[in-house]
Amino acid sequence: MAMNDATPPAPPGTLRLRRMGIDTYQEPVLYMHSGCHVCHSEGFEAQSRVEVGLGGRTIVATLNVVSGDFLSPDEAGLSEAAWRLLGASGGDVASLRHPPPLESLGHVRAKVYGRRLTQAAADAVITDIAAGRYSDLQLACFVTACAGDLLDLEETVAITRAMVRAGERMHWSEGPVMDKHCVGGIPGNRTTMLVVPIATACGLRMPKTSSRAITSPAGTADTMETLAPVDLDVPHIQRVVERTGGCIVWGGAVRLSPADDVLIRVERPLDLDSQGQLVASILSKKAAAGATHVLIDMPVGPTAKVRGVHAASVLARALRDVGQAMGLHVRVAQTDGLAPVGRGIGPALEARDVLAVLRGDPGGPADLAQRAAMLAGELLEMGNAAAAGTGASVAEAVLKDGRAWRKFQEICEAQGGMREPPVAPCRQEIVAPRSGTVIGMDNRRLARVAKLAGAPKTPCAGIDLHVRTGEFVERGQPLYTLHAGSPGALAYAADYAHAQHDAVHVIEDD
Amino acid sequence: MAMNDATPPAPPGTLRLRRMGIDTYQEPVLYMHSGCHVCHSEGFEAQSRVEVGLGGRTIVATLNVVSGDFLSPDEAGLSEAAWRLLGASGGDVASLRHPPPLESLGHVRAKVYGRRLTQAAADAVITDIAAGRYSDLQLACFVTACAGDLLDLEETVAITRAMVRAGERMHWSEGPVMDKHCVGGIPGNRTTMLVVPIATACGLRMPKTSSRAITSPAGTADTMETLAPVDLDVPHIQRVVERTGGCIVWGGAVRLSPADDVLIRVERPLDLDSQGQLVASILSKKAAAGATHVLIDMPVGPTAKVRGVHAASVLARALRDVGQAMGLHVRVAQTDGLAPVGRGIGPALEARDVLAVLRGDPGGPADLAQRAAMLAGELLEMGNAAAAGTGASVAEAVLKDGRAWRKFQEICEAQGGMREPPVAPCRQEIVAPRSGTVIGMDNRRLARVAKLAGAPKTPCAGIDLHVRTGEFVERGQPLYTLHAGSPGALAYAADYAHAQHDAVHVIEDD
Repeated sequence: MAMNDATPPAPPGTLRLRRMGIDTYQEPVLYMHSGCHVCHSEGFEAQSRVEVGLGGRTIVATLNVVSGDFLSPDEAGLSEAAWRLLGASGGDVASLRHPPPLESLGHVRAKVYGRRLTQAAADAVITDIAAGRYSDLQLACFVTACAGDLLDLEETVAITRAMVRAGERMHWSEGPVMDKHCVGGIPGNRTTMLVVPIATACGLRMPKTSSRAITSPAGTADTMETLAPVDLDVPHIQRVVERTGGCIVWGGAVRLSPADDVLIRVERPLDLDSQGQLVASILSKKAAAGATHVLIDMPVGPTAKVRGVHAASVLARALRDVGQAMGLHVRVAQTDGLAPVGRGIGPALEARDVLAVLRGDPGGPADLAQRAAMLAGELLEMGNAAAAGTGASVAEAVLKDGRAWRKFQEICEAQGGMREPPVAPCRQEIVAPRSGTVIGMDNRRLARVAKLAGAPKTPCAGIDLHVRTGEFVERGQPLYTLHAGSPGALAYAADYAHAQHDAVHVIEDD
Repeated sequence: MAMNDATPPAPPGTLRLRRMGIDTYQEPVLYMHSGCHVCHSEGFEAQSRVEVGLGGRTIVATLNVVSGDFLSPDEAGLSEAAWRLLGASGGDVASLRHPPPLESLGHVRAKVYGRRLTQAAADAVITDIAAGRYSDLQLACFVTACAGDLLDLEETVAITRAMVRAGERMHWSEGPVMDKHCVGGIPGNRTTMLVVPIATACGLRMPKTSSRAITSPAGTADTMETLAPVDLDVPHIQRVVERTGGCIVWGGAVRLSPADDVLIRVERPLDLDSQGQLVASILSKKAAAGATHVLIDMPVGPTAKVRGVHAASVLARALRDVGQAMGLHVRVAQTDGLAPVGRGIGPALEARDVLAVLRGDPGGPADLAQRAAMLAGELLEMGNAAAAGTGASVAEAVLKDGRAWRKFQEICEAQGGMREPPVAPCRQEIVAPRSGTVIGMDNRRLARVAKLAGAPKTPCAGIDLHVRTGEFVERGQPLYTLHAGSPGALAYAADYAHAQHDAVHVIEDD
């Protein structure tokens, strides 16, 4: 090192941090050079778990040992997830050491060997998971040990409670606090942004925290963000709810049930059907948000998350039973999960659908309006804001007479100010390759096209559907319009759309 | 790109490969830039599984998306494991696409949900695992689903058979083929290099394939390599065995039961006690090597792999039963697993112990000689080369009269020529901090010190023990000598040895 070098050497046991810009899909990874003195003196090896400390914060990361020349021996590289979790900045110097032994893994092993998870065991495991102390392999082991029907009711309640305890909680004054959740699996279906203004316009309280997209082209938080700020802290959320009765904000900003966010990243690639984990995931978020009444929208269909009526009724019962043990009133609404709901797929296009329904535009998507009114009606009945059997018609009236629209604008203003959703500069129509009846659409491929076009990162990007299942189309008639933020993204999406043409829309000759 | 650039652009769907020099502990990882056209047009995302094709070979790797500037958008970076598996060279251009769906994962899910693994299911799963098609998360899921006592005898046999079928096999002419295996957990204990020459000197056939160290300071292959080449192909192994009756070679060069090598890398960090997997791992290697008679050395002790007598007898029965189903004669010898066997820890130091025993040096480690004679005696009796009850004394005689030593030299010459083990240039004595009786040694910390000194990568590095458990030591008396290849490595090991002084050797005042 030259005498006039501006950066003094880091103290023993520490290294200067470097942001590697490597997206490892949430797993915190640490990169150290094979010639690094800390690596040697601590005896770290590839795949060692290493505790990285910066200021008062520590994370545990998995080590990858680098012999290439893009990392120097006096640097510690961090993956994007590790950089974010540690809250690091350029030039920071961090300490590196062996993490304390992970005692709670003993409970996971005991569960693998067939013993039941006690509340104490669940608390220990979930606390460590929420703190990021489990490697992805250890998370996969825990998820597998809890999959299928391997968790009974008591164990599911124990995990749900532990997940609530391991994060932040929101507290509300006496009285019902309404919430809703969609089990998921179909694009569009952006009912939350309609249900919240309807319910709050009828006097119910509904502080709604939503997620951003993980693998879908848009989450409710992404869609709402095209109309108003969603990244609110707890005091701000409470002010909004006091003033308007409700909110639609991003839950990630308030750390409700953080263990759930960690578990989701390994559950998804394993694609294990784990009822206990699903119930714990849904209800822990709701309990942490301070809800008292929870309505679950459960779309049922072959390409939805819940594929048949038997699975739906088993899951519904588990949600109600665990909800009861947690002190929550849970109602489950089974809905049609065969096709997308609404026309837009992607944040701004879905927001446009929501606005059209709220404003009562004649061309607005009727299916979205109807689905939202049905769900809002259930909530109104649960919260005693409508008599049994009258909820849906009350909700429809609130939509039609503009009360929901006024309430929605009020909520947006309270969250920081309403804005216009962006509009895509690049568009291309995808047309029917032949005449016939559209007998089906592939929800997954539609989602893929929307993501290739740039959704949700580019909020204006996505798909605008022009035909529905059952409609007759002429050869050359537009099936949907691609929206993109750049000509390149438009070309990627169009290439895929053309290559997968017959699979996205299935057209049968008449 | 400049007009006179020597490298033409890669064809569509392909990228130029780059060796990143990142050790991900065996997991094949692919690094693509977030601005990469293939990444966009194929719709790959962080954690996507991607099939990388080069010539006739394909591997499946996990994608990490890079936004840093150390990778260019027209390159595909490979981790060390991916580079090696693909057999890539600098400048190679590879194709990148979505891998076919992993159908066998359905069998893993079925096992998680409580159904039994059939032979067909085991074959499908193990074939995909051996081909590297499972991600580490999916491997952890399979390992967890098979852990504890979740595999019954038939399922264990099915997995063992599948593991043999998924790799290469060695074939031998009619007659007994002897083998031995140590379940492991204690340093030193380098008996194989004594048992093979004793057994073959008595007329038995013993083509021994051994492993290199994974987490220990030395494997038998590492130790043998300090005396003779071990990296032989199958025809060479067969010539050596025809000429001498035996061999001691590295099994990794001949791809016996490759699924086992893949599974081991996730079993280790999970530390799940999985009897079925352990039995399948041991016996699949032996069956693939063409063995007919297998002796298992099972050290039992609180810091060994098998911790108590009950666990030992359950495991022994499973080994015998599965062995029988595979057509193998299996005998299990329970041995003392309380302490290291021999004095050296590290390849060259363990080789020195072996040579001392073979040459009958008066100062050679008696415990190693005795353990080897006992195990060889069992093998002689199994192979009818000694009458029942006389095996150990026959083996001792063969050691004492030099026949084993001559046979060992013959084997080394046939494997490519005998050589002298290297000697460490840097040494340091670690002395007793006080007087008293050594009442115990920590095998794991001893192994750690030896590895910090450089073992097994630096073959001359390791530990030379001077005192045994039960001996009285004076303050300042040498407990052991560190051997290292460089002053830096010596300093690392000595620092740790001093910091952990009381834990490595436990000395009690008299």
